[in-house]
Amino acid sequence: MSEPVAKTNPGRFFEDFNLGETIVHATPRTITTGDVSLYTALYGPRFAVQSSDAFARALGYPTAPIDDLLVFHIVFGKTVPDISLNAIANLGYADGRFLRPVFPGDTLSTTSEVIGLKQTSAGDAGIVYVRSIGRNQQAEIVLSYARWVLVRKRQPGTPAHAEQVPELPKAVLPEELGQGCPAIELAAYDDALAGSPSRWGAYAAGEQIDHIDGMTVEEAEHQIATRLYQNTAKVHFDAYGARESRFGKRLIYGGHVISLARALSFNGLGNAFHIAAINGGRHVSPLFAGDTVFAWSQVLEAAELPGRSDVGALRLRLIATKNRPCGEFPLRHGDQYDDGIILDFDYWALLPR
Amino acid sequence: MSEPVAKTNPGRFFEDFNLGETIVHATPRTITTGDVSLYTALYGPRFAVQSSDAFARALGYPTAPIDDLLVFHIVFGKTVPDISLNAIANLGYADGRFLRPVFPGDTLSTTSEVIGLKQTSAGDAGIVYVRSIGRNQQAEIVLSYARWVLVRKRQPGTPAHAEQVPELPKAVLPEELGQGCPAIELAAYDDALAGSPSRWGAYAAGEQIDHIDGMTVEEAEHQIATRLYQNTAKVHFDAYGARESRFGKRLIYGGHVISLARALSFNGLGNAFHIAAINGGRHVSPLFAGDTVFAWSQVLEAAELPGRSDVGALRLRLIATKNRPCGEFPLRHGDQYDDGIILDFDYWALLPR
Amino acid sequence: MSEPVAKTNPGRFFEDFNLGETIVHATPRTITTGDVSLYTALYGPRFAVQSSDAFARALGYPTAPIDDLLVFHIVFGKTVPDISLNAIANLGYADGRFLRPVFPGDTLSTTSEVIGLKQTSAGDAGIVYVRSIGRNQQAEIVLSYARWVLVRKRQPGTPAHAEQVPELPKAVLPEELGQGCPAIELAAYDDALAGSPSRWGAYAAGEQIDHIDGMTVEEAEHQIATRLYQNTAKVHFDAYGARESRFGKRLIYGGHVISLARALSFNGLGNAFHIAAINGGRHVSPLFAGDTVFAWSQVLEAAELPGRSDVGALRLRLIATKNRPCGEFPLRHGDQYDDGIILDFDYWALLPR
Repeated sequence: MSEPVAKTNPGRFFEDFNLGETIVHATPRTITTGDVSLYTALYGPRFAVQSSDAFARALGYPTAPIDDLLVFHIVFGKTVPDISLNAIANLGYADGRFLRPVFPGDTLSTTSEVIGLKQTSAGDAGIVYVRSIGRNQQAEIVLSYARWVLVRKRQPGTPAHAEQVPELPKAVLPEELGQGCPAIELAAYDDALAGSPSRWGAYAAGEQIDHIDGMTVEEAEHQIATRLYQNTAKVHFDAYGARESRFGKRLIYGGHVISLARALSFNGLGNAFHIAAINGGRHVSPLFAGDTVFAWSQVLEAAELPGRSDVGALRLRLIATKNRPCGEFPLRHGDQYDDGIILDFDYWALLPR
Repeated sequence: MSEPVAKTNPGRFFEDFNLGETIVHATPRTITTGDVSLYTALYGPRFAVQSSDAFARALGYPTAPIDDLLVFHIVFGKTVPDISLNAIANLGYADGRFLRPVFPGDTLSTTSEVIGLKQTSAGDAGIVYVRSIGRNQQAEIVLSYARWVLVRKRQPGTPAHAEQVPELPKAVLPEELGQGCPAIELAAYDDALAGSPSRWGAYAAGEQIDHIDGMTVEEAEHQIATRLYQNTAKVHFDAYGARESRFGKRLIYGGHVISLARALSFNGLGNAFHIAAINGGRHVSPLFAGDTVFAWSQVLEAAELPGRSDVGALRLRLIATKNRPCGEFPLRHGDQYDDGIILDFDYWALLPR
Repeated sequence: MSEPVAKTNPGRFFEDFNLGETIVHATPRTITTGDVSLYTALYGPRFAVQSSDAFARALGYPTAPIDDLLVFHIVFGKTVPDISLNAIANLGYADGRFLRPVFPGDTLSTTSEVIGLKQTSAGDAGIVYVRSIGRNQQAEIVLSYARWVLVRKRQPGTPAHAEQVPELPKAVLPEELGQGCPAIELAAYDDALAGSPSRWGAYAAGEQIDHIDGMTVEEAEHQIATRLYQNTAKVHFDAYGARESRFGKRLIYGGHVISLARALSFNGLGNAFHIAAINGGRHVSPLFAGDTVFAWSQVLEAAELPGRSDVGALRLRLIATKNRPCGEFPLRHGDQYDDGIILDFDYWALLPR
């Protein structure tokens, strides 16, 4: 028996990342109406544009577009084997922009550029900043976002990279929004079919909306979801290995929480049909199977889109909790998050005007 | 911060329904082969017409039609936020007719007309009767059914509506059946591929058929199913809220039981490929995750369809039980249902002659 | 009430099989992208050819082909009601050959020829050997395999069939491989997108690869999978009936284990994109919900395909375990399998050269 080259992927350690390099991720993935059905079945979204070809076509789409978060999860999932297999923590996202709608039949692939590196003071790990780009089969960019993760070093003693921390915006600017949304035929937008009479102008900065409903998560559900995204992070699937881990059980993919909270937000934001940008997001504490997710939203800002009278943007803070209804809008006490909060997510949504 | 109009849907109370009004329900939904796959995966149906494009085309369909119950669940799911969010109980269905086949790519939407109102003697609730109509993207009616639910009043003291109770047929008449089924090329109907040698003429009124097999239900399964139908009834999804409820746990959507029993009924009714009408249905007791569903059928009546020699109709009573095999055909003792019965469903199926 | 002919399928007993007869199985099944999505969601495969239309087209496929094991499960599922409803044990497979790629929209059906019969010495059961053939809607053979099962006799006393045991190959010959794989445009094969730099030439006979990752299985997942294949074996679905069985709980379909192990094997065999043949397989011990599956592979043989320079074949032994990582390559001690082994599967895979 020969001594072969290792065939399996050990994941990259902090030393393996080089500033400026671009990583091509496996596996390209054709999104289909099968994925749409599963996404509906896993979260229960009811936004009419993504649910109905007829509704979408009346507005000017060629057919119902893929839910923006399904696009995000599939683009993101590809980065896991190369970026975060040895990650200690996902630290944040910024400057996420949905730049082109995705339709059934489109094939998505992802590349990531290393845009920053910073070793921790303890010297045994470092923060890796990447800009990940999702493209369709025509190589058109459909999604671009920055992300930073804390990654183990292979050997604590190796010298540190030159430190470089990228500047990232706190929020995407309104003038950058809307590329992922074609011009909307407003006269065809049917509020009754959409399920809400409240268009963009009905919301005001500061407004808080409790989304009321709760959704309990099962192990089978989050595993089915996370595999659908070809996300291979071990912590979501391996109950045997998890016995020795900090929590002793499988962790649920953070993106699953975002999608649950977004689907719940339909009750109060039924016309917020398109996520135009992700400004930031923090997974405050982990979610486990058996927990019930609730959510509420705060309107941070309302903005017009330059040159567009069809849609307006709302900057929304989406808070998700576990096992705690949100009628009292839990958030913070001092510098601590309130008990039960699992997600603090900041995004721009588009609504018809 | 302004005082905004409430954005979330509190559901209608008994006082909010007006006789004769028509409610347009959100969200239109394009049915796809992705939904078909999930439906197969959730229940395991094996009726050849719905399973195989090749089989369906040989008979005269343009392609395999969508399972009638999947159509029902999607049409029904849309009514929940407007009709039954504050319902105390689903009391019954009647006069359900499948009027046109539905194919992948069709978009379904639902409206409901209030056809009856009757306050309870206690004065704190009332029965709302609606006729719900499912239409495709050409506004053609694919399904029409009546349903009545017991709905809470917002305030017990408000004056009652004028009472009106609609007359509904005990069963759809044979001459009304068959619009949902094109003319069938009988010579192309292959019993071996269909899985049963017994065509319409082989069944006689009074015949009882034990469907033998049992199917255990998991929480993830019924949640995935019910979200697929965009049915938002809280009781199916929120284990946290359910702790304080009568049963202390999530209830399974009654339609899930119907689909399970129908799929089990293939073993004995393999050629009953089309549900032409729903005469009535009663959810005798609730199903919970971990329970195992069994089913048996009784042939109530065999009827020819006027002017058609390709297919005949069987009126079938489908009984489902939990944790009780049906070899002894459990039904009633006196005026009580036998232990374990969860569903008593009365429908018309079409079979080739 | 008349005394009707039995309508339900009791399954065949050993006496009911006749040498040389061909059984036409129900139910034909159109495979769609919905099935592909569910397959991805249930196992998490990442082979680029099956995941991406764009990748597959660049190589010369008309579109992404259906995963070979999904084809196998659907062809196999149809045989259960006729062959193995009264089976005591699945004894083995041999000579499985994938003879033509399957694409979304194809309709599969299955026939089985009885190729051998052998009563057990105890006289209360017998081994039935069948060759099962899966065909598409053009009646082209897509899959052919032999299988033998131990089936109960209806009455121990009935005379035995004349004994005939077919000769089956230990392994499919390399010259028989490749019909299920079109000529591959090697220049278009992108290793980075495929996720592995190791092509056919990088593997040597004797090499062992630990696939590292573990995947825990839930009841909902294997039930959803097995119903997707319209496999009706009671032992997988009926927890109520299983209480009285040997294990006291539901058994997981053996094919579910094969698909899990195959998906795990991507980590180490990322370019092994096509299963060309199944040489044999043994389900060493049962898998139950809650168990975590690990896997490792041994390269048994590397073979060129006569006349083809695009792809080469590896004969692989895929070992799956439960609740036991495979870093130490568990296999056998003496004539016993090591603890934790659940699957010993022998197949040919094709890789680009």
